Amino acid sequence: MVFAGAPLDRGDALRRDEARVQDLMQGDEGWWMILSGGDALLQPDGNLFWFHPSEARTLALKPTRIFLGHYKGSACFAAEMEDDTALPAGVEPVDPRRAAMGMSQDEAALYGYARSILLWHQTHGFCAACGTETVVKGGGTRRQCPGCEKEHFPRVDPVVIMLATHGDECLLGRQTAWPEGMWSALAGFTEPGETLEEACARELKEEAGVTADIPSIRYVMGQPWPFPSSLMMGLIAPVSDASITVDTHELEAARWFHRDEVAAMLAGTHPEAAMPPSIAIARRLAELWVAGRI
Amino acid sequence: MVFAGAPLDRGDALRRDEARVQDLMQGDEGWWMILSGGDALLQPDGNLFWFHPSEARTLALKPTRIFLGHYKGSACFAAEMEDDTALPAGVEPVDPRRAAMGMSQDEAALYGYARSILLWHQTHGFCAACGTETVVKGGGTRRQCPGCEKEHFPRVDPVVIMLATHGDECLLGRQTAWPEGMWSALAGFTEPGETLEEACARELKEEAGVTADIPSIRYVMGQPWPFPSSLMMGLIAPVSDASITVDTHELEAARWFHRDEVAAMLAGTHPEAAMPPSIAIARRLAELWVAGRI
Repeated sequence: MVFAGAPLDRGDALRRDEARVQDLMQGDEGWWMILSGGDALLQPDGNLFWFHPSEARTLALKPTRIFLGHYKGSACFAAEMEDDTALPAGVEPVDPRRAAMGMSQDEAALYGYARSILLWHQTHGFCAACGTETVVKGGGTRRQCPGCEKEHFPRVDPVVIMLATHGDECLLGRQTAWPEGMWSALAGFTEPGETLEEACARELKEEAGVTADIPSIRYVMGQPWPFPSSLMMGLIAPVSDASITVDTHELEAARWFHRDEVAAMLAGTHPEAAMPPSIAIARRLAELWVAGRI
Repeated sequence: MVFAGAPLDRGDALRRDEARVQDLMQGDEGWWMILSGGDALLQPDGNLFWFHPSEARTLALKPTRIFLGHYKGSACFAAEMEDDTALPAGVEPVDPRRAAMGMSQDEAALYGYARSILLWHQTHGFCAACGTETVVKGGGTRRQCPGCEKEHFPRVDPVVIMLATHGDECLLGRQTAWPEGMWSALAGFTEPGETLEEACARELKEEAGVTADIPSIRYVMGQPWPFPSSLMMGLIAPVSDASITVDTHELEAARWFHRDEVAAMLAGTHPEAAMPPSIAIARRLAELWVAGRI
């Protein structure tokens, strides 16, 4: 799955050692991934452009620097560039979804991690407990408040995304903002005080009015989703009552699709309906379901 | 599992309607759960004491009020009391773990949800993006910044808790602060850019130096854990290499326990080692593993 499989040694012991991680980040070893407003900087071949520390030092970068970990024995770092930075010839910022489609699995996962954590720093510069401006610690893996001393760790928001099924049909919905004809699995954020399975049943009830039997809901697979920092948890949820009531605040429409219809959507041969691209876990869930593997 | 199974209609549509949810919270319908520094207020029989709105109004309460949802047709709310509030005769604040052991499944889940969300408000009163004091919205289900307009939603921190297995043995660790002789499953927070299975493998490597094969890791079950707001995700992780290197920053010790030994720990007949109480998902994982069900 795109964005999963980061082949990193995140160096938990190393990043606890402030002096050592600072030395590493100011040194001449390793490689820097630079982002531009969350976009990836790509070479013409579609792979990430990694900057040597001496090259990274020539760029105008925002102050937050991240130690990502070691990849194939090299230390990897990430930072955001200022808007008007001049880039090496041929290097271009590319939209994250398009960039991820063209990158290797390894690079997409490294990029997703870098994007999530840099965005977290950009939107979490102040202490939520007291309002004081916080400082970066642990090679960018946490922040600390100089006022109340509270430590802040990056958010990971657990999201459930589920294929509700009823016999040979599965439930897909669409949002108004999506491209015409695109349908996908229903999804929503897990709230405090609920399991994944309970969040799944609640969202199905809220958005489509269908009732899932919680013990029959099964976890299939997960995907880190760096928009900005979700962990998508793919579930399959058999439901017994197929009548739908759409919450139009959340969805434009929801309806049941027969397995043959979903197969056509995946194959691109359906006359009007389509599934999201392969980057999306919803597509993978549909593929597994059509193949009878879940 | 304790803290799971909240039998609530959280009223997603209702809590989007500020006027309606405010009316409801100021009205004479429903019941209030009052917490004292995160502790539950219990009746002598060990059940929650629910306050009628007219009773709740006589208490000195902190300003944040939560609409939990509807339970058995009644609206339920939660608030924290000020430290010096006089309580009805027989009503006592009880430590959350002890309280949860004695409550019904329904009440423990409602209490866990209330505890998580109230603690979130107490530690997230300021906008992490700009430092401005935020205001409660949506019946306490979110906060909004009057400065930058950003909405803030309660955190749910996905935690992996895993039984690593090697043939007929499983890996348990202990922390210095735990009661003597207590051993439990290893656990850790999921970081941005990783799946549950990847977080599980990383934590096993970091804490105990053992290598799990990611595709063979399986999700078993989850548990909301209101200390303050984690979602524990229980996994089983077969490992091929049983040699252990303990990270003493995280653990005092880690070692392999034979299935028979774990059975004795669960039965309370082991001469020196014990498992956590039934409130803990670690114990449930061990029970399922000993019974050959996972």
